[in-house]
Amino acid sequence: MPEVVLKVEMPCSGCSGAVERVLKKMEGVESFDVSLEQQRVVVRGNVTPQAVLETVAKTGKKAELVQ
Amino acid sequence: MPEVVLKVEMPCSGCSGAVERVLKKMEGVESFDVSLEQQRVVVRGNVTPQAVLETVAKTGKKAELVQ
Repeated sequence: MPEVVLKVEMPCSGCSGAVERVLKKMEGVESFDVSLEQQRVVVRGNVTPQAVLETVAKTGKKAELVQ
Repeated sequence: MPEVVLKVEMPCSGCSGAVERVLKKMEGVESFDVSLEQQRVVVRGNVTPQAVLETVAKTGKKAELVQ
């Protein structure tokens, strides 16, 4: 399954919780992991890197794709 | 000027910074204050309470209107 990896600035668990909430609502997402420790988000499903980046960017967090 | 007041769950300055970033981009907003200490957001401008609530909710933060 396609996997998109992002680096996301999340200083606290309120930050990572916010990212989790928007990913739960995102269409095409089958599963995801949000790591506060690694400042990293992995999203699996029928999604494009650009769409995931845009969704996470809507949280106001600084985010970038990791290759 | 119309003023919209929200209570927003923001545990850290990364959280309040994220809310500030989305409000900066919101159409109609003339000024705003985001208080991490009071867990409160005040938005002034040509905006409706519902539109402000929806914009802040996109950050994934728990938010509600205060009257």
